[in-house]
Amino acid sequence: MDELVALAERLQARCGAIGARVATAESCTGGMIAAAITSVPGSSGYFVGGIVAYSDALKRALLGVDDALLASHGAVSAQVAVAMARGARARLGAELAVAVTGISGPGGGTVDKPVGLTYVAVAGQAGDVVRRFSWHGDREENRVASARAALELLLEAAAPPAAG
Amino acid sequence: MDELVALAERLQARCGAIGARVATAESCTGGMIAAAITSVPGSSGYFVGGIVAYSDALKRALLGVDDALLASHGAVSAQVAVAMARGARARLGAELAVAVTGISGPGGGTVDKPVGLTYVAVAGQAGDVVRRFSWHGDREENRVASARAALELLLEAAAPPAAG
Repeated sequence: MDELVALAERLQARCGAIGARVATAESCTGGMIAAAITSVPGSSGYFVGGIVAYSDALKRALLGVDDALLASHGAVSAQVAVAMARGARARLGAELAVAVTGISGPGGGTVDKPVGLTYVAVAGQAGDVVRRFSWHGDREENRVASARAALELLLEAAAPPAAG
Repeated sequence: MDELVALAERLQARCGAIGARVATAESCTGGMIAAAITSVPGSSGYFVGGIVAYSDALKRALLGVDDALLASHGAVSAQVAVAMARGARARLGAELAVAVTGISGPGGGTVDKPVGLTYVAVAGQAGDVVRRFSWHGDREENRVASARAALELLLEAAAPPAAG
């Protein structure tokens, strides 16, 4: 968790510098990203809030994820990760939103979607970015790895544009 | 965090036994309660999801907390804690919902509402319960104490009715 908090401190400094508010939409990480962000004093200055959407029904109701996307690609997919991030960005009112959906284990894996498969997406003014990961730890290790990847992707999205 | 996970394991067993689904609405704990609950394998069987409503605007938009309540009692109040719990229970579709609102510090305290003041509420079929706490630790200690109080109140609410 210390590593996550260190990332959250850097994110807070960077978002403060560019005036970006942040929101989260978490499935497998279950609130861990929001908890790391809010462990830093002053985080209320840029963090608006988050949604932990564990069930498909809540991914639809709270984040506006399309039924057809869930049916055709499954909850653990790049498409649903992007839809969750876009939904959080729009509904929570933030410049940047991150979403995580994955299979932390020990149960829930299939041949096509094994335990550890995780998608992380960020939605921002410049568009969306999504990344696929395959973790090989236990449930808690996979969750921490996913939260770390989410904070790192937020940091990249909040980077000032390169000069030139 | 280990202590929170141990409470979450007991909560999962108890809610499984009585068939109760759980939702969370967090302000100062910032996702810590949901993260503890979802660290237990199988938690998707009873945990539907949670909302981290850091700003007043999100307490209104996502949890349906009344503007008048926020204006007259402030976000850190028994009334708003109960409204957050009721909103989470209704909007997330759970038998039991817990809400936490407080001032973790180091900033944000006033004479009337000092750092450490925290309200925890549970909304259930049998009605609402709300408790007031005054913590005296640092930010992280206050957050953990609040998360522990929330899990303990959920456990009480999920207790089977006494015989007789």
